Amino acid sequence: MPEILFQPSGRRVTVPAGTGLLDAARTAGIDTESPCGGKGTCGKCIVRIATGEVDSQSLGVLAPGAVSDGYVLACRTRVLDEPLTVEIPEQIGRAGGKFSDSSADARLVRHELLPQRWHYDPLAVKCYLEVPEPEAEGGLSDLDRVVRALLQQWGKAEVRVTLPVLRRLATALRAEAGRITTTLVRESGCLHLIAVEAGDTTVRHFGIAVDVGTTTIAVQLVYLPLAEIVAVRSDYNDQISCGLDVISRINYARRPDRLEDLRRRVLDTVNRLILQVCESHDVNPHEISNAILSGNTVMTHLLLGLNPEHIRIAPYTPTLHETPFLNAGDVGLQINPESWVAFSPCVGSYVGGDITAGVLCTDLATDTEAVSLFIDIGTNGEIVVGNRDFLITCACSAGPAFEGGGIGCGMRAALGAIEGVEVDPETGQADWRTIGNVKPKGICGSGMISLLAGLFSTGWIDAAGKFDRSRPSPIIHCVGRRATYTLVAASESDSGQALLISETDIENIIRAKAAIYSACALLVKQVGLNFTDLAHVYIAGGFGRFLDLDQATTLGLIPDLPRERFQYIGNSSLMGSYIVLVSQEYRQLQLELARRMTYVELSTDPTYMDQYTGALFIPHTDPERFPTVRARLTGER
Amino acid sequence: MPEILFQPSGRRVTVPAGTGLLDAARTAGIDTESPCGGKGTCGKCIVRIATGEVDSQSLGVLAPGAVSDGYVLACRTRVLDEPLTVEIPEQIGRAGGKFSDSSADARLVRHELLPQRWHYDPLAVKCYLEVPEPEAEGGLSDLDRVVRALLQQWGKAEVRVTLPVLRRLATALRAEAGRITTTLVRESGCLHLIAVEAGDTTVRHFGIAVDVGTTTIAVQLVYLPLAEIVAVRSDYNDQISCGLDVISRINYARRPDRLEDLRRRVLDTVNRLILQVCESHDVNPHEISNAILSGNTVMTHLLLGLNPEHIRIAPYTPTLHETPFLNAGDVGLQINPESWVAFSPCVGSYVGGDITAGVLCTDLATDTEAVSLFIDIGTNGEIVVGNRDFLITCACSAGPAFEGGGIGCGMRAALGAIEGVEVDPETGQADWRTIGNVKPKGICGSGMISLLAGLFSTGWIDAAGKFDRSRPSPIIHCVGRRATYTLVAASESDSGQALLISETDIENIIRAKAAIYSACALLVKQVGLNFTDLAHVYIAGGFGRFLDLDQATTLGLIPDLPRERFQYIGNSSLMGSYIVLVSQEYRQLQLELARRMTYVELSTDPTYMDQYTGALFIPHTDPERFPTVRARLTGER
Repeated sequence: MPEILFQPSGRRVTVPAGTGLLDAARTAGIDTESPCGGKGTCGKCIVRIATGEVDSQSLGVLAPGAVSDGYVLACRTRVLDEPLTVEIPEQIGRAGGKFSDSSADARLVRHELLPQRWHYDPLAVKCYLEVPEPEAEGGLSDLDRVVRALLQQWGKAEVRVTLPVLRRLATALRAEAGRITTTLVRESGCLHLIAVEAGDTTVRHFGIAVDVGTTTIAVQLVYLPLAEIVAVRSDYNDQISCGLDVISRINYARRPDRLEDLRRRVLDTVNRLILQVCESHDVNPHEISNAILSGNTVMTHLLLGLNPEHIRIAPYTPTLHETPFLNAGDVGLQINPESWVAFSPCVGSYVGGDITAGVLCTDLATDTEAVSLFIDIGTNGEIVVGNRDFLITCACSAGPAFEGGGIGCGMRAALGAIEGVEVDPETGQADWRTIGNVKPKGICGSGMISLLAGLFSTGWIDAAGKFDRSRPSPIIHCVGRRATYTLVAASESDSGQALLISETDIENIIRAKAAIYSACALLVKQVGLNFTDLAHVYIAGGFGRFLDLDQATTLGLIPDLPRERFQYIGNSSLMGSYIVLVSQEYRQLQLELARRMTYVELSTDPTYMDQYTGALFIPHTDPERFPTVRARLTGER
Repeated sequence: MPEILFQPSGRRVTVPAGTGLLDAARTAGIDTESPCGGKGTCGKCIVRIATGEVDSQSLGVLAPGAVSDGYVLACRTRVLDEPLTVEIPEQIGRAGGKFSDSSADARLVRHELLPQRWHYDPLAVKCYLEVPEPEAEGGLSDLDRVVRALLQQWGKAEVRVTLPVLRRLATALRAEAGRITTTLVRESGCLHLIAVEAGDTTVRHFGIAVDVGTTTIAVQLVYLPLAEIVAVRSDYNDQISCGLDVISRINYARRPDRLEDLRRRVLDTVNRLILQVCESHDVNPHEISNAILSGNTVMTHLLLGLNPEHIRIAPYTPTLHETPFLNAGDVGLQINPESWVAFSPCVGSYVGGDITAGVLCTDLATDTEAVSLFIDIGTNGEIVVGNRDFLITCACSAGPAFEGGGIGCGMRAALGAIEGVEVDPETGQADWRTIGNVKPKGICGSGMISLLAGLFSTGWIDAAGKFDRSRPSPIIHCVGRRATYTLVAASESDSGQALLISETDIENIIRAKAAIYSACALLVKQVGLNFTDLAHVYIAGGFGRFLDLDQATTLGLIPDLPRERFQYIGNSSLMGSYIVLVSQEYRQLQLELARRMTYVELSTDPTYMDQYTGALFIPHTDPERFPTVRARLTGER
């Protein structure tokens, strides 16, 4: 018979294999509560298997992350024929302890997963209550008693409650003699009571973080009691067929039925992804009680069905920057209809919630004097520069070149896209690699940067992006004044047709990089600084995952600074949404940052065209700005 | 050519018949604004025709009440061939004045219509704003600018706004260059922005007051800018076919589909009446932005779809006393879906919002030391006694006898019901009158009181309600120990069948009056007072409209006090709803009164049965309690 050691008490017990762990604990004299009667629903008998194997059926009640950490429900676990060490969590081993006690939560949070210095304090919390029975002369209604019990735990606050919750209240209160779990979202000093369930269901509680991109939408499912990301799914935005960029979508939305069409398309995409993350972990979408969505200003408007027309027309005024309190029923998200659906606040017409979410992942959100630069590269480039004292932001239209638009054989960074290139200095021929290592279908933005940097470094193109016609090459063909470069021969491509790069393609990339670089330069100059004054440069965007920093510097897309000052932060819109979801403090910080940001309209700056024109060369007309590139080229050539 | 005198300026002008009144005013040098260009939509050119006739088309823009008071829109009015005196309202004659300015409103309110000392300050207001144009560098969204303009007028407040309003905001703001009308409801320090319209629509604004009775539902349409009741409609509650009293409806509601059935039935009734009041005055239901509903606790629960089961089971706990902020969309009222639907607060299981509304119509809501008694007589009787220092309330089950239930030929107070009777002292025969002066179909509560008081005064029944078998009469028939009284001969009744009153019918009425009288007596005694200490006795209920006070005293239904202390207040539930609709102060007062009321459960009082038994005689076992009745009888007999 196996011996079981319970920690931290050090008690030991020997039981036959097959004994339930709850019974074993009781045999050892450990008082473990099980108010649900061993049905595995209350979560109060949670323990951790430190060593040894058990037969447990805790998945579906506990989050997968908790299970993989060794947590099980004692009532759903049987002892096998081997010794065990079982840890009884300190609070849980005592009467009245609950898995969702804030102190217990703080202890269980897996801080190492989190990107920031933050405190676990999600906007939505489940709160277990033991509501006193009604009294004949007490004169308190069901709602009065629940509100009183809530305020005892949460202090003075305005409690708001909706009709669907009220309709369930009487039954929920009486199902388990006043033991209920309330779901609360905390907003502007209000406690919104958005769900009430009989018994203790605090172990089942989820939130979602959403990046609502113009091209791609990503949804994270977060297990709120552990602040743990349990699933992520992404997909193309169904709106793509109505226009590739925000301007074409605004144009499409001019008819009310088309605005509604766009709203439905983006909602359908988000709802489809919600269903996918939920199905992957046996979560009922109604167990989700908070959603944080971050998107640019146009996407935020389209998702809410707000007319985006005036974002495009001077003086470029959106309907809103901050959204009021909205629930999933209002918005159309298929989660608990009473859930709070919060949007990251927008700053201006072309600096949206994706940027105020992204900034949360950087030093720009911290109390530091050091000035940092944040660049989100996409069809629009958004730039923020600042520190604890100031924040200034602008947007520029890079055009779709970095996402494959306007390039003869361009494509998005998907399967078969050339994402990196090495150019042979002697022949000028490209050695490429594709996403998924399949036959090339086209070239994506990171591939183009890599190609142009390579061609420039090897002298096959000049600073203006023109091919060197003086060197004989079998892959450069001149027709009249325009030259064309064979990137992939017909025999090697996926379609059987050669992939060609024209000088026009190169000009488009140069224009895109010039827009971003000059916007950065202008914004930094506007605050009286140089690039060298920047402590950090954060680069965000789906794009950024593949970006080779040396090549990007060679091209003149990003400033020439010591590498250690750069940081990739990937999809910072999604990551920022996650931080807001699990931290009230960051929600507040985000609102404050958005209000503090000064939005600059670049098109009205008289020096913008000069800056832009100067950047229409590789790396720049002023080589002093790229000393490292110059030194490397001098060494290489 | 007719001469027109403008007051208060005293200017005169002579113009040809057919001249527009706006042109005539301008000819007289009176600067009357007309920003809508004479389309009759802005309401700014409102004037009053003091003497003389005009050709005006102001109806449909102005409330019917305003029109009948002589108000017209100058732009929609032509001069006829006769002299006129035209009053230019002081504020309106000056630039910038608006019909809906609070000062102008206060002046236009027809105080003589109102039952109480109150200040015009409705929960819902329309507020005209001139919102500054957006600026490129201003960084303010549409919502920011509207909120800023609102706060300038309303001071610091939290502004809440819903998605449907946001969806209309951009277009409304731009239709008339920033001139918009906002509809606001003011609740718990929040300004809820529930509608936004282009231009100045302040003259079109309505609210509804609703009495949600168990048997009858009444809806008032109120023109908010003048606080004027423009239409009232009432109808039977469609729930009647599911049970006559609240207990039978609670029983019916035990299945969820039947609870939903009851919810739909009461909603359908209310919505039908809303449509009727709106159609009667060309009002679009979407112009209604506030509804105040008062009903007993069970009706409030059923209308909201809340399970009423536990109201019936000890310890008799309702889901709620005060409803949270709900809008018409949530509740299902067919008015502007964003409208605030507020319910009068309930006090306990059987003292509901109809009572806290009713009390507003009495001295119980005022700052007086004098103690008053409020009795709402219906299937349930509700009683409140108190003054500024205390309020105590209870309910008793009178049974349906006063509404015709449990009486052989009983009926509700509808067409053909005998509502009053005179008994011939010699023959005992009844001389009756019916509602509508048609052939009698039955007898209603007031008829039964009248009949019993008459039979008792003339000695045809004794204090126990038994017929005097010693006097020969052709209309009293004895079968065994029970006697039957022929109220209406077969030849005279509507159905061709005689209407008979049995001693059992009389017992039912005596039990009902005993329940109400003894509850009053007990409640007054519980606070250490006698009936003679009461300054006022208010009697409410649809029933109360027909109640003969002398006869009711003779029967022992109400205490024997000087007549001047009694006051009929009719449907005080409806009237109280109206006061709350037009006065924030009364809304607040009602919430405070409800919280202050001490709810007493009569059934647990050990002396209740004694009190009740003592009251089971006409007028009472203790004749000292009814000195006037005794004196009158002594004089008569």
